[in-house]
Parts: sequence; C-alpha cells; structure tokens
Amino acid sequence: MTPYSESQLAFLSIEQAAQLLRRKEISPVDLVEASLARIERWNPSLNAFLTVLAESARRQAKVAERGSRRGRARGPLHGIPISLKDNFWTRGIRTTVGSKILADFVPNADSDVAGKISRAGAILLGKTNMHEFAYGITGENPHYGSSRNPWARDRISGGSSGGSAVAVSTGMGFASVGTDTGGSIRIPSALCGLVGLKPTFGLVSTLGVVPLGITFDHAGPIARSVTDACILLEAIAGKYPRGETRPDHRRLLGSRPRRFRIGLPKEFFFERLDGEVRRLVDAAAKQFESLGARVVEVSLPRLTGAVEQASNALVAEASEYHESQGYYPARAAEYGDDVRGHLEWGHKLLAVNYLQALRKRRETTQDFQTAFEEVDVILAPTSPIPAPRIGESAVRNSGERETTTRAELLRLTRPANLTGFPAISIPCGFTREGLPVGLQLLGPRWGEARLLAIALAYEEATQWHTRHPHLR
Amino acid sequence: MTPYSESQLAFLSIEQAAQLLRRKEISPVDLVEASLARIERWNPSLNAFLTVLAESARRQAKVAERGSRRGRARGPLHGIPISLKDNFWTRGIRTTVGSKILADFVPNADSDVAGKISRAGAILLGKTNMHEFAYGITGENPHYGSSRNPWARDRISGGSSGGSAVAVSTGMGFASVGTDTGGSIRIPSALCGLVGLKPTFGLVSTLGVVPLGITFDHAGPIARSVTDACILLEAIAGKYPRGETRPDHRRLLGSRPRRFRIGLPKEFFFERLDGEVRRLVDAAAKQFESLGARVVEVSLPRLTGAVEQASNALVAEASEYHESQGYYPARAAEYGDDVRGHLEWGHKLLAVNYLQALRKRRETTQDFQTAFEEVDVILAPTSPIPAPRIGESAVRNSGERETTTRAELLRLTRPANLTGFPAISIPCGFTREGLPVGLQLLGPRWGEARLLAIALAYEEATQWHTRHPHLR
Repeated sequence: MTPYSESQLAFLSIEQAAQLLRRKEISPVDLVEASLARIERWNPSLNAFLTVLAESARRQAKVAERGSRRGRARGPLHGIPISLKDNFWTRGIRTTVGSKILADFVPNADSDVAGKISRAGAILLGKTNMHEFAYGITGENPHYGSSRNPWARDRISGGSSGGSAVAVSTGMGFASVGTDTGGSIRIPSALCGLVGLKPTFGLVSTLGVVPLGITFDHAGPIARSVTDACILLEAIAGKYPRGETRPDHRRLLGSRPRRFRIGLPKEFFFERLDGEVRRLVDAAAKQFESLGARVVEVSLPRLTGAVEQASNALVAEASEYHESQGYYPARAAEYGDDVRGHLEWGHKLLAVNYLQALRKRRETTQDFQTAFEEVDVILAPTSPIPAPRIGESAVRNSGERETTTRAELLRLTRPANLTGFPAISIPCGFTREGLPVGLQLLGPRWGEARLLAIALAYEEATQWHTRHPHLR
Repeated sequence: MTPYSESQLAFLSIEQAAQLLRRKEISPVDLVEASLARIERWNPSLNAFLTVLAESARRQAKVAERGSRRGRARGPLHGIPISLKDNFWTRGIRTTVGSKILADFVPNADSDVAGKISRAGAILLGKTNMHEFAYGITGENPHYGSSRNPWARDRISGGSSGGSAVAVSTGMGFASVGTDTGGSIRIPSALCGLVGLKPTFGLVSTLGVVPLGITFDHAGPIARSVTDACILLEAIAGKYPRGETRPDHRRLLGSRPRRFRIGLPKEFFFERLDGEVRRLVDAAAKQFESLGARVVEVSLPRLTGAVEQASNALVAEASEYHESQGYYPARAAEYGDDVRGHLEWGHKLLAVNYLQALRKRRETTQDFQTAFEEVDVILAPTSPIPAPRIGESAVRNSGERETTTRAELLRLTRPANLTGFPAISIPCGFTREGLPVGLQLLGPRWGEARLLAIALAYEEATQWHTRHPHLR
C-alpha cells in the first residue's frame, strides 16, 4: 500500500505525516499499523504502555481514512497516532494513574485534554506508564514495572511521564501528552532525547487529570521536534488572555527570532552540574550567540530558598487530595514505598509551613518577572545529570556531597512549576556514553510563542533532535 | 463664610458636597472644619479615630480650595474629607493596625488605596480604630479601647473596621475605606446603619494593607449611601476584565434595573435569625417584589460545610504572616487575648486541614456560580443579630443553642469572602430599640455595577439611609 518502511513512517514529523496524508500518499491506517507494530515489538522490554488500544486505534484509523477521503480532515493532528499518560481520564478506558489503588478504574468521562485530542482527529494508541500517582521523577513503578530508557535500557526513562517519553522516542506514536508537577514532562524528555513543553500554568486544562498538587500541575506535549510540540500544544491549549500571542506552528516556521536576549542565571541553575551536562549547555549558549542572541547574566536571588521549600507545598496538596478520596491513610498498604513515604510526611505537615513555601514561591516569581524584563528566555540545563541507572537511589555529583537521585533530577525543573512560567526541554547533545542531554529554556507567562520560536532556531541549527535510539 | 450649619455640611452626600464645591457655595475648608469639629466633640466618647490629622487635613483643604478656584477639581472626591482604617499604610503617618506591636510603626510608603484617594483629591482626616490586626468582628480593642456604636454607646460598633463605620455614621468625614476578610466592612456598616461594599476579590488592591488572610482580604468603601459608596469605589478600584461593566455613579443614577431576579437562599442564610432581623429582611424581599423583581429560591447546598471550615483557612494564613514578620510567637505577650488565641491555634493547624478548607471553598464557589445563572443578586441578612453589648461574648439566639458573639456576627458575611464575589450591606430598618439592621445583597464576580444599581433602587424606595444617630 505505501512505499515507506515501518520505521520511516514511525519517525515522520507530524507535519510531514499530515502532508502525506493530505496528498493521499499514506493513510492513517499505515501510521497506526506502523505504530502498533513497534509497540508489539518493543513495548514488552521498554514498558512504555500500561494499556494498548490496538483495536480502537485501528477502528479510528479507518474512520479517519474515510474522513480524509471525503475531505473532512480536521487539521494537522487528523489521523496521527498519539498516546496519553495514564493519569488523564479517558471515557471507558482504564486509567490506573500508575497505581494499584486505581488499577481497575474506568472513568465515565474524558479529561479536557482527551476530549480535545479526539476532536482534533488524533488517534489514541494507548495510555502510558508513569510514576505511581505521578509522584516521582524516575519512572520506576513498583506495580507495573519501570519504563526503560531506550538509549540504555538499564537506565531510567525519567518520570513521571516516563512511558510517554519512551513511546515517542521509539516511534510508538508521534507524540504524547504528559503532566508536569515538578519536571515530569521535561525530565523524561531530556533523558530520552525529546522535546517536552510545560506550558504556562492554566493554559492547558487539567480538568480530568488525577491531581498531584493542584497549584503545581500542568499538562503539555512530549514530541520529537519543536514544531510537533507546537502542533500538539495548539490542539490542547485553552484561550490566551487578550493581547498575548498564541503559538501557531505555521507562523513559527516562517519567523526567525532576531535580536533576542538569553539570560544566564547567576544563581542556582549552574550549581553542581555533571561535567558533560555543563559542557553541552555551555556550548548551547555559544550556539545561541552565533544565532544572533545577546547572552546576559540574570539574577534570581531568592530561588534556592523557594526550591528548598517547594516539596513542602507539593506534599501538602498531594496528601490532602489522597485523604479527600479516602486513599490515604485508609489504603496505605497499597502504595509503593516512596509515595507512601511522601504522604506520611504530608499528613503531618503544618499549615504555616505550607504557606511559608507559598510565600517563598511568590518572592521568586517576582524575581523571575524582573529578569524577564531584561531577557526573552532564561537558559539552563533541564537535568543536572544524564539518566541514572534503574534502582540507583543516590548519585554522587561532581565529587561533591551525595544527594538522592530524585532530588538531583528535580532540582532544575521545579522553578517553572513554582512560578507557573512556561519551560521547554530540547535535546542539546549526547554524553560520551551516548546518553541524551536536555537544554531548558524558560519564558515569561504566556510567552510560549516566542519560547518555541527561540527553541526552534536552536533545533534547526543543531539537528540533535533527528537522532533516534537504536533498538535491538 | 457658609450658610450651612456644621451638621448640614457634615451629612451632605458626597455628590451634594461636590456640587456645592463646584458652585463655590462651600469650600473644602468648610467641610474639613465641620468634620474636625465633630471629631473633637464626639471622638473622645466614640473612639472612632486612633490618629487625627487635623493639621495636615486643614493644609490639604487650603490646597484643594486653591485647586478648585483655578478650576483644577479632580472629580467627585476633590476636597472631600474621608478616613482610612488604620491597617492601610500611609506614608509618614503612624499605622498601628490596632496593635501594640505596631504602635509606633510609621510606613515609608503609601498603600495603593492611600495613593489613589490622595490622587483623587480626597482629604485624609485620620486613621480609624479597628480590631487588633483586623482579626475580630466586634471592634473591641484591648490596646486602644473599643469603638462605640453611635446608636447605643453600650453596644459594639462591629469590626474590624469599626472606627470607620462610627466616623462615617456620625459625620466625622464623608466616607471611609475599610477592609473585609470575614465581614469587616459589612458588619460594622450593618450595625451602624451604613452602606458597606466588599468588592470582587482583587478589584481593589490590597498592596500596602497589613494582611490578615491573603486569600480572603478585600478593601472597600463604607459610606452613607449607595451612590457615595460607588463614588469611593470608582476612586480606589483597579481595572475590570474586558467585557465587564465598570460601576459609574453617574450612569448608576440614570438607569433603574428592570425585570431583575432576586435569589432567596434555601440553606444557611435564614437559619437562626433574630426575630426582628428576620422581619425586616422579609419586608425587604417584599419591597423588591414591589419594585418589579422576581424573587426565586436558590440552593447553596455546600455552603454550611464551607463556612464551618473557613476559619481554619483564615487562621493558617494569619499565623503564617505573623510568624514571617517575627511577631508570633516571639512577641506573643503583646497581643490581646483573642488574637493570641487564634494564632496559637493556627500555629498548630495541619496543612491538610487548611487545604481541605480550600477544597470546600471551591465547591461552594461553584454552587454560587450556578445560582447566579438564575438570579442577579442573592438576598440575605448581613448580621443575624443587631449590635450586641460591649463585652457580651455569648449571645443566646432565638431560644436555640448558645454561640459566641464572634461566630454569630461573622456567620452570614463569610460566604462572600470564601467566594470572592461582591457583597453589599445596606440599611433595611431599625429594631424596636432603634438599632439599625443591614440587608446583604451578593452578586456574581465583577458584578458591582448591577449590584449597586439594585441596592440603589431599594435605597431610594425606602430611605432608611437618611436617618442618622442622635448624638448627645
């Protein structure tokens, strides 16, 4: 039927695929079959999906095929197979949230995001593996097994949207929607060599997402390129306030940013970095200069204090939710050790400590706002380290004090959850061992359009995103 | 100089005064002198002001007089003497917040409200007495003495903006700006026979107000008529979102609401009312029908639960603030017993209880939103009881269970602080003993313009607002 190989089909960009679909050179059925073939082959060892919807995806593909034949294509996602993290409610489809407690939960309604991607014509391949209740950054799951990093299978995928990242990086679908409460979109994207965008707080509805921390939760795209991420964002985003520019992948491609300013934070973001991460991020800053950016220092003096208290705020919100649902402490035994440990702590936290954390958060948000008067985006690493090994709970960092994997991985992504400002992770190279490293760009509130344009300029200049893991 | 008596001048409406000022029939100096004469005479026994700014008010009056002579009047507040509650920062002017801890605090900057009324040309007569740190509803103050109800001096003024209400109701200034965290504008307005408006959360900036509970705090006008309240609101309000109607006292007077719907809540608001309050509020509902309103029942099923937990949320926010400033527990001995008691409790409250209260709050806000799809405003009493006696800490209510004065007074005003929706208290009659009773109208978010128009229709039909306390 199609002259393209399975792997050619599976790694098309969304735009290329949409173009071929429009020209009738391929059909949604081809895309779904290629994706499902890869899921069948690689998912058993990589553990990206908790639920595969082969039958319904094939059915939807046929519907989409008929739709395009009759000229009823609904935009660039029409007929494109994608996945959803398993914490988005999907009507009639099991939604485990990576937990034992919700192992058999079948929602009777769609989350806003599930509804939007379905109306955009995308085809849902399945629900992806995740850290239990999204409360962890490694993607290790005691109930369903850990999702594995396709660049080195003894290493973590990152979490909590680990399954989404593994799926997208291996051609098991074209993109995925994840959630990010402390870095859960950006960390697995960085560790798996993908583009992950945490949008401005509130831009993408979290209605129908099982909450982790309601003032920190975001939903956003995980994709193989900036443009693909932009296309998915357009489909799932709500309204922008008047006067703010809405991202648009067509305009994105036409406009190259000129005379833009990149902020290098004096504090926090460049502390205790792995040497290879440091080298690649420094090179990215230089690359931006060669693209015409002015790179200037910015100061975020109150960020360290705010990040230190961020987990206090999150744990309280998570604990209150789990108590309100009768999960904790009633069903404490059914949690994995790490999540139960968090909830035990949150259960006892004082309100004044929660509110103190919110105070620090407001202060650092002001500092970011001040910085964004001087620069268009702030440049930082996404993770201070490349993907650690599965089960490695402590990492020694740059010869300094030993910290937990969890704390290290989260450290540099938390600021964007505290402030609610958008942040994107894009590939910026590989370690000598061949592990991907992510570059993080942070923008001002509602600044997705410019953030994506700047990220795209870098992506086009470097082409790191075109490498895919070699699967055996 | 002027043909008007002191009392005639002191009880002019702001609009009348502005008109006479424009016509040069009176001068700002006349208004200030009349106000100061009354402060000198009555403040020692009523205790409305903590700081009187006689000298600077006289100086400002002369400046305003010269300004009007040169045709530089800045609008309806130009040359009008008003007061501010003592929790608004005023540059170079002592701001005690009714506390011993801040007895000598002189801010080096103006609050947003102080700046706005000054730019509107209003003349600041002084800073008014209040419940310590705004944390109480009676207006009884252990450090500065209680402000006294001018309708019966052995009774409370209500609080926490008690001094503001006493001042305005006795002609010691034309209006005042108070704050309302649980009812602190509306309760003293109701108990003193005034109009008090708590606007939509966020409409009037609280920057430079010493906070009580940052998610509950509002600033708004206390005045002798709906139109005066509207004039003051216009001066202190920030921007409305696009598409929302901004209140405008000139348009207000021209447009009479027609075919409007009044909601009578089935739950909560009409429980355990004093018999006389009940009778007057029922009569007000009838009055509205005769004005052309359709009165319909509305349901707020989750309100009781939300109000029961409201003090949990407030006490946590208050405690965190007082700890952040080093006031509590470091200077615990300097607080009055009631406020110290609250902070002791808040210091120990769990974060999950705070967040549970916020959850209940979101739920009742949804119920109000649903109700406002059916009605323009919701009608309720402001306080379930008329002003209790000073020192009366428990009141027996309608032969039912005994509750504290504080809990009773706050009960019906708290909903508007939980939801952030606007609410106004307007006079609706007097008890047989001659104590004023307040009617509360609650509107939807940003609905001040219509809320004021409906309140004005009632005020014009009843004229309760034209009675003033007889001072001896």
